[in-house]
Amino acid sequence: MISYIKGELAEILPDVIVVEANGIGYNIYVPGSVPGELPSVGSEVKIYTYMNVKEDECSLFGFLTRDDLSMFKMLICVNGIGPKAALGALSNITADDLRFAVLADDVAAIKALPGIGPKTAQKIIIELKDKLKLDEVFESALSKNKKADNNSNVSNVMMIRNDAVEALVSLGYSSKDALVAVKEVEDIENKDSETVLKEALKKLVKF
Amino acid sequence: MISYIKGELAEILPDVIVVEANGIGYNIYVPGSVPGELPSVGSEVKIYTYMNVKEDECSLFGFLTRDDLSMFKMLICVNGIGPKAALGALSNITADDLRFAVLADDVAAIKALPGIGPKTAQKIIIELKDKLKLDEVFESALSKNKKADNNSNVSNVMMIRNDAVEALVSLGYSSKDALVAVKEVEDIENKDSETVLKEALKKLVKF
Amino acid sequence: MISYIKGELAEILPDVIVVEANGIGYNIYVPGSVPGELPSVGSEVKIYTYMNVKEDECSLFGFLTRDDLSMFKMLICVNGIGPKAALGALSNITADDLRFAVLADDVAAIKALPGIGPKTAQKIIIELKDKLKLDEVFESALSKNKKADNNSNVSNVMMIRNDAVEALVSLGYSSKDALVAVKEVEDIENKDSETVLKEALKKLVKF
Amino acid sequence: MISYIKGELAEILPDVIVVEANGIGYNIYVPGSVPGELPSVGSEVKIYTYMNVKEDECSLFGFLTRDDLSMFKMLICVNGIGPKAALGALSNITADDLRFAVLADDVAAIKALPGIGPKTAQKIIIELKDKLKLDEVFESALSKNKKADNNSNVSNVMMIRNDAVEALVSLGYSSKDALVAVKEVEDIENKDSETVLKEALKKLVKF
Repeated sequence: MISYIKGELAEILPDVIVVEANGIGYNIYVPGSVPGELPSVGSEVKIYTYMNVKEDECSLFGFLTRDDLSMFKMLICVNGIGPKAALGALSNITADDLRFAVLADDVAAIKALPGIGPKTAQKIIIELKDKLKLDEVFESALSKNKKADNNSNVSNVMMIRNDAVEALVSLGYSSKDALVAVKEVEDIENKDSETVLKEALKKLVKF
Repeated sequence: MISYIKGELAEILPDVIVVEANGIGYNIYVPGSVPGELPSVGSEVKIYTYMNVKEDECSLFGFLTRDDLSMFKMLICVNGIGPKAALGALSNITADDLRFAVLADDVAAIKALPGIGPKTAQKIIIELKDKLKLDEVFESALSKNKKADNNSNVSNVMMIRNDAVEALVSLGYSSKDALVAVKEVEDIENKDSETVLKEALKKLVKF
Repeated sequence: MISYIKGELAEILPDVIVVEANGIGYNIYVPGSVPGELPSVGSEVKIYTYMNVKEDECSLFGFLTRDDLSMFKMLICVNGIGPKAALGALSNITADDLRFAVLADDVAAIKALPGIGPKTAQKIIIELKDKLKLDEVFESALSKNKKADNNSNVSNVMMIRNDAVEALVSLGYSSKDALVAVKEVEDIENKDSETVLKEALKKLVKF
Repeated sequence: MISYIKGELAEILPDVIVVEANGIGYNIYVPGSVPGELPSVGSEVKIYTYMNVKEDECSLFGFLTRDDLSMFKMLICVNGIGPKAALGALSNITADDLRFAVLADDVAAIKALPGIGPKTAQKIIIELKDKLKLDEVFESALSKNKKADNNSNVSNVMMIRNDAVEALVSLGYSSKDALVAVKEVEDIENKDSETVLKEALKKLVKF
């Protein structure tokens, strides 16, 4: 029922942040990564929320973007994943990386997330895969990177990977093959786009 | 508990609209027809709401008028129709047309609505018929048309139909017979009031 | 959780009133007598509320005074009386008269209330009697009458009855005996305090 | 979901206080000790709250400090202690004294609290002990005393006890031994720090 809360960041506590709107302080559970991305206490924030209603509890789970919130909502639709487990997962992976992992059947990346075992990782891939459209995922990641580019705090790896996939797609390869091929390039942290593109192309030619 | 929410139309999302009141954004499920009738995002809106409370959910269903909301509340009293099914139905028919269909035992019109099968259509007619007073329905439809006349975006068909029924009633026929007779006039979209009135009269004389 | 709602009286509907606070319109079920005592729509009102939470419903029951609300809360503690039945009862009797009826074991007056049968009337007396202190009830009724005196719209009968009981108590009779004696004076509407006092005294002397 | 409510103290009723924020009055159950520590009705207050959600109830329990609220939250995690029992307990002991009692295995002090029997007292000690870090408890108590010192309304006994424990710890004794030794000094109300320290030292030497 509550889509977001806009107000003063009143407190950052160990397990929740508190946002005050009109004299009411709201406890909001957020991913572990969020406090580091928040402005200082006292500033105005807008937190996109999911209201979790149970017989004995009514709590808010919050995210900095609607995109992260929608990934969270997708995760909790997966049988066996509750809000706390989904929050734990999204504390350790961005929404885009999780989508890429699902699209690339990357069980290893998903089961490495806290509270997510191998079986649940497979269920996530099975249940979410057909809900995710690759080009949409692609576009949303790139648009964020462009925004991030200006703030120059984008993760370099993400940029190199996307440039390479983008180039392969423009050469006519399907996004999925491009994604898998780029994914298989090792030690991507220490290579530039061109090298990554060449190695990915070699893998595609061998397919 | 929440009768309406008055605030800024913050977002129109695929399945909900978001209205902000005092820093809190509220998710409101609305009929598919509503987004098209809303002002632009950022404008002030007043959405009449029904708060649906379940063991694991608390959500708002919203309508542009109290009249539409009251039709919705009637529908969800019908055994087997929940809020989402009622919303689906009211996305495809106006409250007035639904009332006319109930009063005219028009099972075909009702079962054509998404999520409403033949049995449910009959249940709607049986359970709602004695809650609807024909003249009230009539008056509410006409008063809306008059308002709509000024905004000249009223559905032409609705206007012709009501003029014909109004004329028949003034000739002494019961509203129900007038309604049924006018209903049976085919290809009403391409006929003017006079022709529709004549054809309806022929049917009434044959009764 | 919600003690009262202070805001604009937005609508008076057949079964609820709507009070708007900060852009949110709240549906509040009130006793049938309340709409008649409300200022005009658009005025500022303060409605004392009881929030009724059930598995599939969350609704507000409202009263013009905290005293009426506390009587309502007492009534719904009686086994078998829910909020709607209590509201129905308090639509037909003031909180003070109901307290007097309980203290005077007046089953007839209580079972005459809509939705309250003989058994429930007895349960109300049994379960509420020891929660009501006669002098408190007495005082609260009189203080209201004094307030009402200035607005000169107090019910005459209530005034005569209290004056007689007050006089008997000052003569040394217990409030309970005084109350019962005055209660037994017939056709009280058409008698002045003095006559009522004399007839009540005759009954007390016969005890 | 609601972390605190900041607004006007509207009413202090026998079992709840009412705080108004934006036209909504909120009923908040508070420990018996709180009304005495509140400013006058009409002043601005900030009450830290716990929202208790049950199938048929949604209520707020409130405290003047986040520290008291966190002690309350710890207590209701103990099997068999609900919000009302925890509130009753915290009406009769400060959060710090309760922590000291838990750390010093002081069953007598805990079972003396209303609604807490011997078994529950032991459960409180067993379940909370490893959640409490002695130095943190120590520091929080001392920092409060220092604050209280300036308002000179600190409980004298608390001051003497902490000074003695502080001194013993600086002499190299573990906080636990120091706490237990000081706890065993009788008639502490009528002794100064030095005497208490000497008697506690004698007990430690005998250990």
